[in-house]
Amino acid sequence: MSLLIRNARILTLASSDAGARPRRGRALGDLGVIPHGEVLVVDDRIAAVGEKVDAPADAEVIEANGRVLLPGFVDCHTHACWAGDRLAEWEQKLRGVPYLEILKQGGGIHSTVRAVREATQKQLASGLRDRLQLMLREGTTTVEVKSGYGLSTEAELKMLRAIRRAGSEWAGTVVPTALLGHAFEGELDDYARMVVKEMLPEIAREFPGVAVDAFCERNAWSVEASVKLLEKARKHHPIRVHTDQFTSLGMVPEAIRLFARSADHLEAATKKDLVALAASETIGVILPATGFHTDQRYARAGFFVDQGGAVALATNCNPGTAPTHSMPLAIALAVRFCGLTSAEAIAAATVNAAAVLGLTDRGRIEAGLRADLVLLHHRDERQLAYELGGNPVELVVCGGCRV
Amino acid sequence: MSLLIRNARILTLASSDAGARPRRGRALGDLGVIPHGEVLVVDDRIAAVGEKVDAPADAEVIEANGRVLLPGFVDCHTHACWAGDRLAEWEQKLRGVPYLEILKQGGGIHSTVRAVREATQKQLASGLRDRLQLMLREGTTTVEVKSGYGLSTEAELKMLRAIRRAGSEWAGTVVPTALLGHAFEGELDDYARMVVKEMLPEIAREFPGVAVDAFCERNAWSVEASVKLLEKARKHHPIRVHTDQFTSLGMVPEAIRLFARSADHLEAATKKDLVALAASETIGVILPATGFHTDQRYARAGFFVDQGGAVALATNCNPGTAPTHSMPLAIALAVRFCGLTSAEAIAAATVNAAAVLGLTDRGRIEAGLRADLVLLHHRDERQLAYELGGNPVELVVCGGCRV
Repeated sequence: MSLLIRNARILTLASSDAGARPRRGRALGDLGVIPHGEVLVVDDRIAAVGEKVDAPADAEVIEANGRVLLPGFVDCHTHACWAGDRLAEWEQKLRGVPYLEILKQGGGIHSTVRAVREATQKQLASGLRDRLQLMLREGTTTVEVKSGYGLSTEAELKMLRAIRRAGSEWAGTVVPTALLGHAFEGELDDYARMVVKEMLPEIAREFPGVAVDAFCERNAWSVEASVKLLEKARKHHPIRVHTDQFTSLGMVPEAIRLFARSADHLEAATKKDLVALAASETIGVILPATGFHTDQRYARAGFFVDQGGAVALATNCNPGTAPTHSMPLAIALAVRFCGLTSAEAIAAATVNAAAVLGLTDRGRIEAGLRADLVLLHHRDERQLAYELGGNPVELVVCGGCRV
Repeated sequence: MSLLIRNARILTLASSDAGARPRRGRALGDLGVIPHGEVLVVDDRIAAVGEKVDAPADAEVIEANGRVLLPGFVDCHTHACWAGDRLAEWEQKLRGVPYLEILKQGGGIHSTVRAVREATQKQLASGLRDRLQLMLREGTTTVEVKSGYGLSTEAELKMLRAIRRAGSEWAGTVVPTALLGHAFEGELDDYARMVVKEMLPEIAREFPGVAVDAFCERNAWSVEASVKLLEKARKHHPIRVHTDQFTSLGMVPEAIRLFARSADHLEAATKKDLVALAASETIGVILPATGFHTDQRYARAGFFVDQGGAVALATNCNPGTAPTHSMPLAIALAVRFCGLTSAEAIAAATVNAAAVLGLTDRGRIEAGLRADLVLLHHRDERQLAYELGGNPVELVVCGGCRV
């Protein structure tokens, strides 16, 4: 089966010397544009890209009419597996009820933990599958999904199994992450010891090589507990860390030292930490939908990129602090509030996001890579960041199939 | 041809005593919900609504599965007819170039005026038609579109003809508005005199009864010029006015005195003016996408509603200050920044928006009204405001047809 997309403005995101490595510094904004080009897809792969390509006579033809074609978005940070909703809590917040009061009533993350524990694996998978379908319509073809609302070995395993199950039934690719250090019950020290001694080995057995993540923050996992978990985990797993969302606690230098794949959030990161992160192998992941939905605080991605950093962009899709599954919205916010250009935000949402997940076969339009492609309504890719709301996607090709 | 939508959570927006009149005060939030109901559509009309309705055996059935069904959105304030784009100007703004510098380079509204003058009527209609299609996908079935980028009798007529033409080719309804007092060339006094003496009569001849609008603001139309135009216009036309976007100049009391259909923007309106407006016949129209895209200033719609005011909500879709065609986004912003509840924002985007346009046959789900209906993905209408970005619409019925 082959598919020829022609007369497209192609953002290849390809760069002769960088390959699959994340793009750093202001080179991030080089989208590798072919102003009028063609892409041939054979089976699930990109077979050829160029101004003119040789296509079989029976190839199905998609006429792009000058529209922008880019790699499918890679949403590299989500908590899209959940049960219940937080609508009543949001209404309270809008009415000015303090968050501590909501927590006292059993709201906040704990209400999601309760709902996730009560849900069956099948129910969790079904809710996630619905969200994955909405993501796909808006051009997301690869999604990372974290566990972390279980807070027990059994419930975390249930989440990871639900994530795997929903992924297996979806046209795109789901990458699970074991968010073992999210919240905790009882004393952090006891809980963290249980996670390292019991939960991590159990999860490693069933999900070998799964990325392990922690949420390092005041009233969540301390630097000490996060480091203990990640030091143990990194022997067999890629590691990531939520850090500096509200408070700069000193986790960024630890993430660098531990060669974390990514340091995510960074709204409160100091300039010194951003400079160090920019010189490291760790990718900074920004999540502007959260600042937009909550407290209007944003990561200084422009500064970080100026220092030569590698930045990726994600939705942070979750029921409490980022009610969105739209990568176009994340792009629109990153350009408005985080100091990225339109082109940089596009690269952060594709090639660099794929690097966060360790996926070298996507995030670019190059022969041999997986055929995950998005055709926009727009003929100028800057419109993607400029326009607010709505769905700018005309057509999605996912694993070689029109969806 | 008949269509039965069943198992829907129906927001009828109907109220036994209000009819087509705008909803005022906190009664705005009464959505007239039928938790599990059916709607029968025959030809282009709603034939019946209720928990159970009698339907012909051959009616096409749409199974809503508990999803929310509401009236098609009425976008009652847009400048969606334009040519060119303002992307380069936006990039300058993001880089910190002052707006006055951009104006000096011929940017801002004047670049759109130039592009509109250079465009043919056919080109204008074609660009508008594309935007109308995108709006329809996101649930907007009625759109007001203003002229105002022509700044000459000929060019304003060209715009209004293009708006009429695009409307005639679209499944939804386009309501044109003659925005005769937008910007000006030369001296305001001379220009405004020409508009009243020459442009208004010409436009009235070809578009009898079209609403007439003015943009009253410092460096735009003064209160005096706006009042002169609107006093003349109101003898034969409904009138509207853009007021208090940046500056409270005293136009709100004049709008009330002149029985303007609406006073739009209101970001800078004083409490005193909002109280007076709330007690008047004039509807306050809020346009939060503009504050979001520009200076984070928003109208105090919650306060206005508390005073008993009638509020409507629109996108303000335009190339410079509101790059969006999404009513769901307008709803999400109104709830976050303007003090409306989710339910109030929905009413402001349907029944009250229809009242701004003087349309009594839509904005509600009642027997006899036009069959403009939107089925959401969501089973809880609060999700409409809660979720950010993307398209929450599952299905649109427009004039009785699935689109």
